[in-house]
Amino acid sequence: MEETSRQQRRLAVVARAGLSAPQLAKLAALAPSLDALDHPVARMLEPLGLTTRMAAMLACPDQAVIDGDLRWLADSGATLLASTDTAYPMLLRESPDAPAVLYVLGDVAALADPQIAMVGSRSCTAGGRDTARRFAAWFAQAGLTVTSGLALGIDTASHEGALQAGGTSIAVLGCGLDICYPKENRRLFDRIVRQGAVVSEFPPGTEPRPALFPQRNRIIAGLSSGTLVVEAASRSGSLITARLAGTAGREVFALPGSIHNEMARGCHELIRQGAKLVERPEDVLSELKISLSSQILATSTPSPSGGPVLDKEYKILLDALAFEPAGVDTLIERTGLNSESIASMLLVLELDGHVAPHPGGRYSRIAEQCN
Amino acid sequence: MEETSRQQRRLAVVARAGLSAPQLAKLAALAPSLDALDHPVARMLEPLGLTTRMAAMLACPDQAVIDGDLRWLADSGATLLASTDTAYPMLLRESPDAPAVLYVLGDVAALADPQIAMVGSRSCTAGGRDTARRFAAWFAQAGLTVTSGLALGIDTASHEGALQAGGTSIAVLGCGLDICYPKENRRLFDRIVRQGAVVSEFPPGTEPRPALFPQRNRIIAGLSSGTLVVEAASRSGSLITARLAGTAGREVFALPGSIHNEMARGCHELIRQGAKLVERPEDVLSELKISLSSQILATSTPSPSGGPVLDKEYKILLDALAFEPAGVDTLIERTGLNSESIASMLLVLELDGHVAPHPGGRYSRIAEQCN
Repeated sequence: MEETSRQQRRLAVVARAGLSAPQLAKLAALAPSLDALDHPVARMLEPLGLTTRMAAMLACPDQAVIDGDLRWLADSGATLLASTDTAYPMLLRESPDAPAVLYVLGDVAALADPQIAMVGSRSCTAGGRDTARRFAAWFAQAGLTVTSGLALGIDTASHEGALQAGGTSIAVLGCGLDICYPKENRRLFDRIVRQGAVVSEFPPGTEPRPALFPQRNRIIAGLSSGTLVVEAASRSGSLITARLAGTAGREVFALPGSIHNEMARGCHELIRQGAKLVERPEDVLSELKISLSSQILATSTPSPSGGPVLDKEYKILLDALAFEPAGVDTLIERTGLNSESIASMLLVLELDGHVAPHPGGRYSRIAEQCN
Repeated sequence: MEETSRQQRRLAVVARAGLSAPQLAKLAALAPSLDALDHPVARMLEPLGLTTRMAAMLACPDQAVIDGDLRWLADSGATLLASTDTAYPMLLRESPDAPAVLYVLGDVAALADPQIAMVGSRSCTAGGRDTARRFAAWFAQAGLTVTSGLALGIDTASHEGALQAGGTSIAVLGCGLDICYPKENRRLFDRIVRQGAVVSEFPPGTEPRPALFPQRNRIIAGLSSGTLVVEAASRSGSLITARLAGTAGREVFALPGSIHNEMARGCHELIRQGAKLVERPEDVLSELKISLSSQILATSTPSPSGGPVLDKEYKILLDALAFEPAGVDTLIERTGLNSESIASMLLVLELDGHVAPHPGGRYSRIAEQCN
């Protein structure tokens, strides 16, 4: 217990100093128990290539600050995960400039899940938001964890889509985990902690600053097998995430859009630079080299709307759907169900191959195949 | 004169037999004056690799049919252009399987113009049609001739856009030039004859058949430095044109669209296969290796709305345009001009850098630069 808390203190110091995973690995190779961190000497730190400031933070940590970090850890139940720990996600460890330490709220094991990063503009279009939600739900049902940055717009829709489909989501923050940024996403933050994990390399108390977002983005990209940019303007932060994903050797995907949609410009830029053009979530999955048994995972995941009561409603909805495409409004009239239930049920029916989506948010029934 | 009409007869026979440009070149190498065609012998035709049917049509042409072809040529004023002629367009001659003979109505010289092929779906969206018209007008103003297939939808809009901007357009038909297919495009056909050329490799009387369209498409692709697919469904004829353009070593361009737009599927397919994603007409021009002095060409081309009277209207329109984006409806109210004039004037103002387009068909004024 004593040793555990000493180790925690060392990691809190490493997090404050902002070491990278390779630097921690080097340090661990020199001093396996990290005992050396209690009295690091210049000769030992030299091969790590630290800045003077980092070396000073490591050698003479502000103990009051570290005490505060440890107190917050104990109070919040957060985990301090070192890159030398086997629970540290392998893909992230392999990515350039991975952080030495991650603060994690929620399920640490979720970080090892196969992940797809979904990012995009805060000021996205309504269509972009719907697409993000739909794709995220599909990925979740296929057993992929959806990782994003908790920002408004596409990030929020992506987290929500995954959670609503009963899947797992990971949010990576550009501030300390004691701060919910943006404030509007407090409930979403808490839900992700319960259905996945919220992570940050920044110690508690770190305020969100624009300069920290590219750093946050490299973790999003590094955790994931691929990054999908849903909607992004030219020169947007999402393009940085995509570039970092490419640098880390991960797949980069982008959704095309109308040439009149400014929020498609960034995606088009990426496609020109070699990102894979994606029209359907299936396109992403077929490119990712992840061995996913979507069948097994789908059955082990609770149905988003589960239960026998809804089975009846599904039947009512299917009966109300002719083979001619119909919109949600028409279906509300025909079934008496509310729009939210209809939307989520349509998603499930689409995933199960019972209905097909059409332009303008309409759906039609697919004839049952004899097999 | 006697020799000219004999030569015409020989070419009409060659056209009926369906020879390719390389085959005619071989024949011309063997018998420079093509006199041999009056009494071709098996030994001479053998190296051409003709089918039995082609050889028979060449050796024993149906003189009544050929008489009819020559009569139609004389009546219509059409030109019979041989691939051995210096007026035969060089790019087409270099493309695989070019036809030995082209029937041409209109200006034969237009065939030597630098061309961009614009193709797409017959059942395009209204947005696709507008985009085709706008891009074609831009290309025409930049001095490029717009080549297409006279079909309904994207083809029609492309021809119209070029002509309305005072430019040149070329239509390639999959039937004889005595037939206007589709019938709806009779006026457009006549206008292209006056402002460009309508061409076909098929002799008069040849009815349009689906099997002939891929052949027609290879001429569209072969004449042009690049092919732009505006909107196309999966597995559409436009994709054939694009593939033929690629095979001929020409640039292939495609416009992206919303993932909900079925008419963007074909374009997305092409982009995945390496076609250049295009958002603005400038993107096309910058990729084409054509030396175009758009300034010189623009001034030598009559302005689409020309004349000093309109200069005043342009000023009224500019004055009515604040720096906040405004739509055409607002501008009609403010200026008293009709929507068609406003639309064409906006295009010119956009090309001249006075106004900038915004989503939803709105425009804003650009502050004059001090230089």
